[in-house]
Amino acid sequence: MSRLCCRFAQTLTLALPALLLGSLLLGWTVPVVAAEPGTGVLSAEESDPNRLGWMQGFPPAPEQVIGQPDSNYFSFPKMRWTVCHFRELLPTKQVSRGLGEPMPLAYALDDAINDIAFTPIDGDEPMSWQASLNENYTDGLLILHQGQVVYEVYSGCLDEAGQHGAMSVTKSMTGLLGEVLVAEGVLDEQALVGDILPELADSAFGNATVKQLLEMTTGLAYSEDYSDPNAEIWAYNAAASPLPKPEDYTGPRTYYEYLATVQPQGEHGQMFGYKTINTDALGWVIARTTGESVASLLSSRLWRHMGAEQDAYFTVDSIGTPFAGGGLSAGLRDMARVGQLVLNEGVINGERLFPAAAVERIRQGGDKQAFAAAGYRYLPGGSYRGMWWSLHNEHGAFAARGVHGQTIYIDPTAEMVIVRFASHPVAGNAANDPTSLPAYQAVAEYLLNRSPGY
Amino acid sequence: MSRLCCRFAQTLTLALPALLLGSLLLGWTVPVVAAEPGTGVLSAEESDPNRLGWMQGFPPAPEQVIGQPDSNYFSFPKMRWTVCHFRELLPTKQVSRGLGEPMPLAYALDDAINDIAFTPIDGDEPMSWQASLNENYTDGLLILHQGQVVYEVYSGCLDEAGQHGAMSVTKSMTGLLGEVLVAEGVLDEQALVGDILPELADSAFGNATVKQLLEMTTGLAYSEDYSDPNAEIWAYNAAASPLPKPEDYTGPRTYYEYLATVQPQGEHGQMFGYKTINTDALGWVIARTTGESVASLLSSRLWRHMGAEQDAYFTVDSIGTPFAGGGLSAGLRDMARVGQLVLNEGVINGERLFPAAAVERIRQGGDKQAFAAAGYRYLPGGSYRGMWWSLHNEHGAFAARGVHGQTIYIDPTAEMVIVRFASHPVAGNAANDPTSLPAYQAVAEYLLNRSPGY
Repeated sequence: MSRLCCRFAQTLTLALPALLLGSLLLGWTVPVVAAEPGTGVLSAEESDPNRLGWMQGFPPAPEQVIGQPDSNYFSFPKMRWTVCHFRELLPTKQVSRGLGEPMPLAYALDDAINDIAFTPIDGDEPMSWQASLNENYTDGLLILHQGQVVYEVYSGCLDEAGQHGAMSVTKSMTGLLGEVLVAEGVLDEQALVGDILPELADSAFGNATVKQLLEMTTGLAYSEDYSDPNAEIWAYNAAASPLPKPEDYTGPRTYYEYLATVQPQGEHGQMFGYKTINTDALGWVIARTTGESVASLLSSRLWRHMGAEQDAYFTVDSIGTPFAGGGLSAGLRDMARVGQLVLNEGVINGERLFPAAAVERIRQGGDKQAFAAAGYRYLPGGSYRGMWWSLHNEHGAFAARGVHGQTIYIDPTAEMVIVRFASHPVAGNAANDPTSLPAYQAVAEYLLNRSPGY
Repeated sequence: MSRLCCRFAQTLTLALPALLLGSLLLGWTVPVVAAEPGTGVLSAEESDPNRLGWMQGFPPAPEQVIGQPDSNYFSFPKMRWTVCHFRELLPTKQVSRGLGEPMPLAYALDDAINDIAFTPIDGDEPMSWQASLNENYTDGLLILHQGQVVYEVYSGCLDEAGQHGAMSVTKSMTGLLGEVLVAEGVLDEQALVGDILPELADSAFGNATVKQLLEMTTGLAYSEDYSDPNAEIWAYNAAASPLPKPEDYTGPRTYYEYLATVQPQGEHGQMFGYKTINTDALGWVIARTTGESVASLLSSRLWRHMGAEQDAYFTVDSIGTPFAGGGLSAGLRDMARVGQLVLNEGVINGERLFPAAAVERIRQGGDKQAFAAAGYRYLPGGSYRGMWWSLHNEHGAFAARGVHGQTIYIDPTAEMVIVRFASHPVAGNAANDPTSLPAYQAVAEYLLNRSPGY
């Protein structure tokens, strides 16, 4: 267990109690507080869900049950089991792969990747790629180079036939669908949300544009600060839950009802504000525009045509609305297929699934000034567009990112896609970026410089 | 709408209110009461879930929402939508098909089947096969003859890529796994349940044998009479629900906890008594014996090896226990694959998945005398073994059967498998047997006598 693993220990004790479903929504807002080593956070090996025995046996021992509704199922280390088992705890909606044959990925594995060294951000000692996997509580990681799998590993709760929560990588799927519709002329990015969804006309979303949703530059009175009992996230979570509401509950009962209550704060278009409800609003815009839910559209536009091996699924609210902002679970290789499809700007297995312009917009990125104002320490000079994060680094890398370490990281220069599922104890990716982003860059440089005939 | 459709109208008004999840468990116990025509039960066309608009739109109109927890989702006609959407209402456990290529079914469609005429039981006028489909609120039906699809139709909520509740056909999957384990010598059918599951030693199951579970000849104080508020089914349903329990709830909280409370009534081995809890107990026996839940074992023994097109799934209780007695949903063609596998006594696509002896036991059937005492009017001379129903007719037909019209009907003489998903308004199959069983026999005779070069 290296020193790095304990940096987040103090954060952990602040951030973890009783988050439950709420954690699903947690964005980048958890501060990383440096703590002394030895403060007792279990390492990846120590917290391995198989080792801890969650849900093993018939029945599992009472202290090893992770179930509804009492078990605080998204607290660490239980969440290391839960990330692979959302459907066993919540109602879900299928993202069908259809009935055809899966299109196998091509393989050209390169074990030398394990030995690639990089220096963590703010670190002074090199770390190996292989060491970074446990450091980041990796459950599954796959690297595609020029369309071939050069690296693949599973750990913790995940295997090749399992599905893992994509968390806010879901946003990038919803955002991609949105950009596809814009590129096809089906959706006007200058249209006002209130014109598409009259139900939101009187909310803060009413006079925001679709583009402002896609870039998350809306001005919304919405806090995801879990330490504040009055933060809007709590009302959102209550509305989103598919479980029965308390008898005296009088609040909104669905995603849609919640969105209609959102009040303005500041002006639209001024500043990037990472707020999950933008994606839920975009999901609603997409559904109203196309007549398909995001779950259905993700199937009909991507999953049924990209040679997917597995169905994916979304968690839903009490009226079956897929959680467009964070509810997707999928197989690792299928996420890699999405990454390759995006790297290829809409083409996979020789078939064009959507216009290249959809990805071009994402790659261009959003408003850097609006982004800079939000102060992401590990993404200096970055931006956000189509619900993807643009690093604007020398390689032009951009990424889908979800709490606890989920990512689709695309490096067009290196023709590289990295997909990772993880269950890091700290939600915010600022806890794993120091040992992830430079590692990805190091692999990209290795692949670029590898002898051609490798 | 023919006269037959209204026979069950009176039953309907008695049987349907507020059954909710309970209906999932309803066996053959609903009486069929002849009623006058015109008493207002919607026909198959009138109750088509697409026509009624359930869950269409974003959001659906309030009166068209089918959700948790208030919408009485298993009442007719809502249940015609629900049978294809259990996973959107409840937590579920995957039955993985694995990642390989599906094995396509061979096709030799024969439209002439639509015109086959039969006389319904107790009827005096002939009916066509095609007319029987709507009469029985058929959602999907597929006929295999000599391993080739000769007939296939989808309706209502189902299409070829959808999954439908198998209801008590689930029991036959659990029973088949049990017979496979017996045939392989892994499970001793003479063993006492209490010896395998010490938790059940003091319950009525304790001194029952595995064979008595498989034949449902246990003596259990357990009533599935929904009209009796003191019937055990209510406590069972409460225990089985994965939703949060009321705060003042003190009863059993899982299938396993419920099973431990079951009291004896009568002697084991004397009489057939169709009680779902036998299957849940068998599922527990199987899990303890193999270390795999029935969901996992169904995947590892069948779904991953039979060329399945789709994953299937089970509903679960609050600790993730698959509902072995009724919780399976699956694709129609995959159920046909199971049927063909059973007809072939364990072989499919040239691969043997289990010993032929497992099916031989099922085909032999159970104790006819014990069965006769239960008085099934439409299954005279029948029996029950391995949780399959043996008709003991001239063709040696046997079947998996689930409420509201689900079936896998196997006719070894005609080398025919019929799989049907349906959403008949009346739970008990006695309501659809008169227009189903003679229709199946007529198709079997047609296929037997068809010119060889057809």
